[in-house]
Amino acid sequence: MTLEKVKALTFDVFGTVVDWRSSITREGEKLAEAKGITGVDWAEFATAWRAGYGPSMAKVRTGELGWTKIDVLHRMILDEILARFEITGLSEDDKKEFNLAWHRLTPWPDSVSGLTRLKKGYIISTLSNGNIALLTNMAKNGGLPWDVILSAESVNHYKPDPETYLGAADLLGLEPSEVMMTAAHKGDLKAAAACGLRTAFVPRPMEHGPDREVDVETEDWIDVTSSDFNDLASKLGL
Amino acid sequence: MTLEKVKALTFDVFGTVVDWRSSITREGEKLAEAKGITGVDWAEFATAWRAGYGPSMAKVRTGELGWTKIDVLHRMILDEILARFEITGLSEDDKKEFNLAWHRLTPWPDSVSGLTRLKKGYIISTLSNGNIALLTNMAKNGGLPWDVILSAESVNHYKPDPETYLGAADLLGLEPSEVMMTAAHKGDLKAAAACGLRTAFVPRPMEHGPDREVDVETEDWIDVTSSDFNDLASKLGL
Repeated sequence: MTLEKVKALTFDVFGTVVDWRSSITREGEKLAEAKGITGVDWAEFATAWRAGYGPSMAKVRTGELGWTKIDVLHRMILDEILARFEITGLSEDDKKEFNLAWHRLTPWPDSVSGLTRLKKGYIISTLSNGNIALLTNMAKNGGLPWDVILSAESVNHYKPDPETYLGAADLLGLEPSEVMMTAAHKGDLKAAAACGLRTAFVPRPMEHGPDREVDVETEDWIDVTSSDFNDLASKLGL
Repeated sequence: MTLEKVKALTFDVFGTVVDWRSSITREGEKLAEAKGITGVDWAEFATAWRAGYGPSMAKVRTGELGWTKIDVLHRMILDEILARFEITGLSEDDKKEFNLAWHRLTPWPDSVSGLTRLKKGYIISTLSNGNIALLTNMAKNGGLPWDVILSAESVNHYKPDPETYLGAADLLGLEPSEVMMTAAHKGDLKAAAACGLRTAFVPRPMEHGPDREVDVETEDWIDVTSSDFNDLASKLGL
């Protein structure tokens, strides 16, 4: 490992820094109570909303859709699954507000303390497919102490397009090897490694709830594997 | 004034948040001492470096140069004025390092405390012609508590191009009228106002040193005029 050169850590956000599933489930339940909606499994709804994310970004990545920010993609998916779950009676304002639930996702218990430690030794940045407003509002709501907010929107390319990782390094004024991508997902890390970034794997076994198996095994090509952000800070000597 | 709608404050940085002249003068004097350079008025050198900034951005704004970040423009100007001031004997590494002096500019005395107060009520963002790496490093060096770093580089347009102000509002997910541009320079504010942004004028009488007159008068079209960032926080009820 040649991690002495690393100057910045870039973080995947959905699943790695914040717990989207519990947050969306909770917001759904809140909405249901306020609007008298019954019979919906909101954890399942959250999973369905998230499941629409990859395919909708794929449309942008392949050029089927022009550049479209996640807020808009989230809304497109929402309209689809509201119909699928047979949820009716929401006003346009209700839907707008519910769509912003993604701006209010709750950090994992170690995220704020771990990032605060990591910030002492590194530039800490988001590198998320979430748009800049979403990431900014989420940081403000959750107390995430980012030095800088970088997003797919900063370069108009969604991960895992190489332009996202290389563009982030360029915006930070760093060589790819001076940047370490931190994520709970190996696909994200593999794409970053292919661009010359270092990689930190922080599996989040509860990302998809208690009933789904998650790959938490380290691999040879990964630079650091940590159980959470505080463990990562310790492993990096902070 | 309809300032109740304002959700984000965007800040000009060079001159408004940080004191470029004293900082560059000090860095020049430090370099001169280390390298045995004599006979240079470093305040004059700082003024010359800054004076090259507008014309070099104008080349990008008119299309004479493709998109070029400020770090690169600063270096082009540096090479020119090193020759003009007849400063020789600097290595490539010395010049690279001196060029990064712009990443280390010192905040005005009220900047950190004022921004910390303003952050309680608003999203606070840079909106500078400085590139993202420069602004990130400057924030880290100076303890500037930005929620998000927006730059001309975020939209590949230099202020006062309208794309810069409108692009910033779009990246923040806000209407132009929900964003207040804060600057020590009326030209910047005038361009922002023309795009529908609100405006806060914070004159910095010492920006160009003790010997140069600076326009500190408010005007009818300006929404708020404040003597510093703490005064601005008070005027906004924080």
